[in-house]
Amino acid sequence: MTNNLDLKKFIRSVPDFPKPGIMFRDITPLLASPQAFQAAVDQFADHFRNSGVQKIMAAEARGFIFAAPLALALNAAFVPVRKPNKLPFDTQAFHYELEYGTDTLEIHIDALHPGDKVLLIDDLLATGGTIRACAHLAEQSGAEIVGCGFLIELTFLKGRDHLCRYNVRSLIEYSDESA
Amino acid sequence: MTNNLDLKKFIRSVPDFPKPGIMFRDITPLLASPQAFQAAVDQFADHFRNSGVQKIMAAEARGFIFAAPLALALNAAFVPVRKPNKLPFDTQAFHYELEYGTDTLEIHIDALHPGDKVLLIDDLLATGGTIRACAHLAEQSGAEIVGCGFLIELTFLKGRDHLCRYNVRSLIEYSDESA
Repeated sequence: MTNNLDLKKFIRSVPDFPKPGIMFRDITPLLASPQAFQAAVDQFADHFRNSGVQKIMAAEARGFIFAAPLALALNAAFVPVRKPNKLPFDTQAFHYELEYGTDTLEIHIDALHPGDKVLLIDDLLATGGTIRACAHLAEQSGAEIVGCGFLIELTFLKGRDHLCRYNVRSLIEYSDESA
Repeated sequence: MTNNLDLKKFIRSVPDFPKPGIMFRDITPLLASPQAFQAAVDQFADHFRNSGVQKIMAAEARGFIFAAPLALALNAAFVPVRKPNKLPFDTQAFHYELEYGTDTLEIHIDALHPGDKVLLIDDLLATGGTIRACAHLAEQSGAEIVGCGFLIELTFLKGRDHLCRYNVRSLIEYSDESA
């Protein structure tokens, strides 16, 4: 049983990245351990297996790493959410505010249909901007969000407060910026 | 048995993207079919299972989609190759030429070790610039490249000519720009 593995042991904390005062939680050691990576996917799958997931959405690039194997584990479609000018077919876009400036995410217009049961996956829940953009894209299409899963949640940034309508599952939590 | 599924049926050809005269091969319909996506991963796994793969490298973003589940299938480490300023720890970089200008890809300095048996994965082999950059990064570290796998190969661009030292496997081939 790898499923109860303490995944936090596989995260490397890198101080002052991308800027001073920020403790970056580096997932590459977890990805370097097939046992830990599989345990993370299994923990997501166990939590959402009975949620009726039909499609899994994730934003590039790190979100893809967990969403792709989870889609296979749950026999669900994988819907990549991308930056502008990456998707070749007709797209719908959502523009959202960042700390400085704005950003845009897109999906193909035929990626989701009304009533689709959609799970949103990302590696990190910080302030929640990216996941809310994904949620808006899903709900613009009439899809139903059956859950949001994160490898890591920075609970002190309170991104979860914006997701209270959803079934949210984080596998690893940090309550402050300390190592 | 999904393993012999004709994966080409799940690729959508979109003309004139990203510029006039280019036929873009869109993988999103394949990703939307759990059966087809699983078959692609299985076909890679079957081909490389006896190659002694210890680590799988893939460049962001679409490469991650196939490399992540394949790493789990082959019980191998997943090494993400990223654009500059994305990886938080110390990195090694490789700069390479594009049609206009240059690009850079990076891995963490502790991602690979001499003698590691590495499989390179990407969704597309076109002229081969990205995969050669990944190969340089691997070989700079003293790793051994045991194979290169692509979902799609555009054979008329002859990217494979630069990869003749390696065990190359493409799951879908296009010999011209026609639909």
